[in-house]
Amino acid sequence: MKACILAIGSEMLTPFRVDTNSLFITDRLNTIGYDIRLKAVVADDIGELANMVASVLTWADLLVITGGLGPTEDDMTRDAIARVLGLPLDLDESILERLRDRFARRGMTMPEINRRQAMVPRGAGVLPNPNGTAPGLWLERGGCAIVLLPGPPREMKPMLDAVIAERLAAKAQGTGLFRRVLKITGRAESDVDAQASPIYGPWTRQALPITTTILAVLGQIELHLTAQASRQADADAALAAAVQELQAALGPSVYSVDGRNLEQVVGDLLREHTLTIAAAESCTGGLLMSRLTDVPGSSDYVDRGVVCYSNQAKTDLAGVPAAVIAEHGAVSEPVAQAMAEGIRARAGTNVGVGITGIAGPGGGTPDKPVGTVAIAVAVGDETRVRTFQFLGSREMVKFQAAQSSLNMTRLMVLGLPGAREWSERK
Amino acid sequence: MKACILAIGSEMLTPFRVDTNSLFITDRLNTIGYDIRLKAVVADDIGELANMVASVLTWADLLVITGGLGPTEDDMTRDAIARVLGLPLDLDESILERLRDRFARRGMTMPEINRRQAMVPRGAGVLPNPNGTAPGLWLERGGCAIVLLPGPPREMKPMLDAVIAERLAAKAQGTGLFRRVLKITGRAESDVDAQASPIYGPWTRQALPITTTILAVLGQIELHLTAQASRQADADAALAAAVQELQAALGPSVYSVDGRNLEQVVGDLLREHTLTIAAAESCTGGLLMSRLTDVPGSSDYVDRGVVCYSNQAKTDLAGVPAAVIAEHGAVSEPVAQAMAEGIRARAGTNVGVGITGIAGPGGGTPDKPVGTVAIAVAVGDETRVRTFQFLGSREMVKFQAAQSSLNMTRLMVLGLPGAREWSERK
Repeated sequence: MKACILAIGSEMLTPFRVDTNSLFITDRLNTIGYDIRLKAVVADDIGELANMVASVLTWADLLVITGGLGPTEDDMTRDAIARVLGLPLDLDESILERLRDRFARRGMTMPEINRRQAMVPRGAGVLPNPNGTAPGLWLERGGCAIVLLPGPPREMKPMLDAVIAERLAAKAQGTGLFRRVLKITGRAESDVDAQASPIYGPWTRQALPITTTILAVLGQIELHLTAQASRQADADAALAAAVQELQAALGPSVYSVDGRNLEQVVGDLLREHTLTIAAAESCTGGLLMSRLTDVPGSSDYVDRGVVCYSNQAKTDLAGVPAAVIAEHGAVSEPVAQAMAEGIRARAGTNVGVGITGIAGPGGGTPDKPVGTVAIAVAVGDETRVRTFQFLGSREMVKFQAAQSSLNMTRLMVLGLPGAREWSERK
Repeated sequence: MKACILAIGSEMLTPFRVDTNSLFITDRLNTIGYDIRLKAVVADDIGELANMVASVLTWADLLVITGGLGPTEDDMTRDAIARVLGLPLDLDESILERLRDRFARRGMTMPEINRRQAMVPRGAGVLPNPNGTAPGLWLERGGCAIVLLPGPPREMKPMLDAVIAERLAAKAQGTGLFRRVLKITGRAESDVDAQASPIYGPWTRQALPITTTILAVLGQIELHLTAQASRQADADAALAAAVQELQAALGPSVYSVDGRNLEQVVGDLLREHTLTIAAAESCTGGLLMSRLTDVPGSSDYVDRGVVCYSNQAKTDLAGVPAAVIAEHGAVSEPVAQAMAEGIRARAGTNVGVGITGIAGPGGGTPDKPVGTVAIAVAVGDETRVRTFQFLGSREMVKFQAAQSSLNMTRLMVLGLPGAREWSERK
């Protein structure tokens, strides 16, 4: 089943806006067996939109159009569809009444211009919009279903879900696509793929095929598993088995199989183990603490953090002896360790993190180039210290350093060795 | 002059990836007078791509295609173009030689599969790729120029700029679009627009027309000015005058007219005035410090920061008297003030910032609902304290609070009153 998604609006043809509705729509349509073959953004021009719709109708089983259903002259999706299908536009009295009611409830009179939103190509089904004035429309032509939805995501999303449940799911045939994501950190993409591909490779040839895509994003690797199945329960079972097999092979470097990000996973672990955390950050400049505190409820386990950019601040705030800085340099494992243990002692928390490095673009030396970061995590009577060499811009180095410190915390709280030790042990 | 941008690649038809190359391409093409009428993402399918190209050639003056120029079977942009234009593909010996050289320089033999990248539709111009193996291609058909570029942004961007300078700028006719952005913070969109629209409204009717779009993004309002002119110098002069007129009217709420973000503007100001800064953050959890330290060279003026989530930490790290917390509550102007002045005294910096609030989703009360944030900034012998009521998710509240604290710092360093006082003074 082939589908096309069109977004209407000249503002999405400027350098400032990108269409993101189509990501949500793709995910939902994939699940009921539609394969997206084309996505396009079309200007607010009735002729251009009509041409595009006419061309899509020659091959698609489903056309979803978002935007252009507002009350102004620029909003011409209704008119374009009526033109292509050769249908007259009729005034729908029940829409008009709902519009008037909506305005009346806010003590306003409906502006005359909103009558346009009550115009319906003859024979079209009306899709109610609980969150806005623009109703959606449903039409069919020569085996192709046409769904018109408003552009604002808050209005579009529930309307798409309703149209899928009430009309499209029944129409869909064959198999749907169902997905899981494994998130992995602390290992290189090539290393993960060398270990994972012998496992996932054969899955494409099994009765219920699963395709796997490996995606390297900053500070982590993602394995996207997509199962094709006609029944959700079958897909769920196959995906659960696949996830389990990959987890067993990849070990503790897999930190999430349920969509949670690393700060959520670490936060949940700290709460489960009733642990509190404090951090002393230099090159990450507060990013670790900011990510930890992005998680709702993080005040349960986050006590405090210090950003000690200057050497004096490292001594004042984390108790790093000036002699250690003088002997080893501010970016060194002994300083990271003193920061982690110092902030933990001062805060009286269970976990302490210390991060010191060179985020760049300046400040690098031949010995310690930009991207060199020493990280220490103290949990119980163990302190682990690692020196990393990160690549990329200043912001990329900061993110990867925060990510690595979260991952070290995760592994230590779980009582697990790091990825390096784990793969050596195998 | 009408242009179309096509991105080729099935991975951009999944829920995980969005085409962003087209934003850069749009900006560049607008400047030389091309109007983007259609953007589309097409699957790795030679028939579908060929159909789309054939349809675009009926109306476009320029077609830019990115992606599908790699060496694998999936990469079929070359073949699709050759098919549509009815051209044979010839092996280009000079491309082949450059490919072999490129591999040889890394001590590798060119894999046979890369020969595909040396296949050129007969008569096409070859566009060198300094950053990768895939060369670009230039063709013309019936008044439409066709530019094929590789997908990776690092390869595509310099190649587009070269093709614009060497081929497209000469071909372009008529007027180009030139842009400026005014960034404004601390005021509501409706308020900014009420003041700005009488000024920018008439600009669309002047000899060199300027259109203005107002865009509300988190924590700021942007005014996008677009001038249409055949000569860049004319556009620059008109835009400079327009920017100056809006700045004069909107006053100090305009913080940037040159693309810099707020943390860069504040950082540059601190450096110019040889001031140093320290912050005590509660609800922003380190985000203010992280944003300040995103700016290269920020170690010149950032001394230290503390994240004091718990009441005890506020006392320990910023010297907030426990009695002040007990009397006014942790989220209160007296506590914010004690945090700002306390951290400044302890750090020995010139500027101190204190932020305390309720980021949500939990923790709100009828008196102090989620989004209530008290912010204090101490500069010289003045401390300003404000209480804000931000809307949105936890992360949105954090961002807006950091933004407001940066803006208060900016105004105080400049010796300016806040937006409220400024508009009252007018």
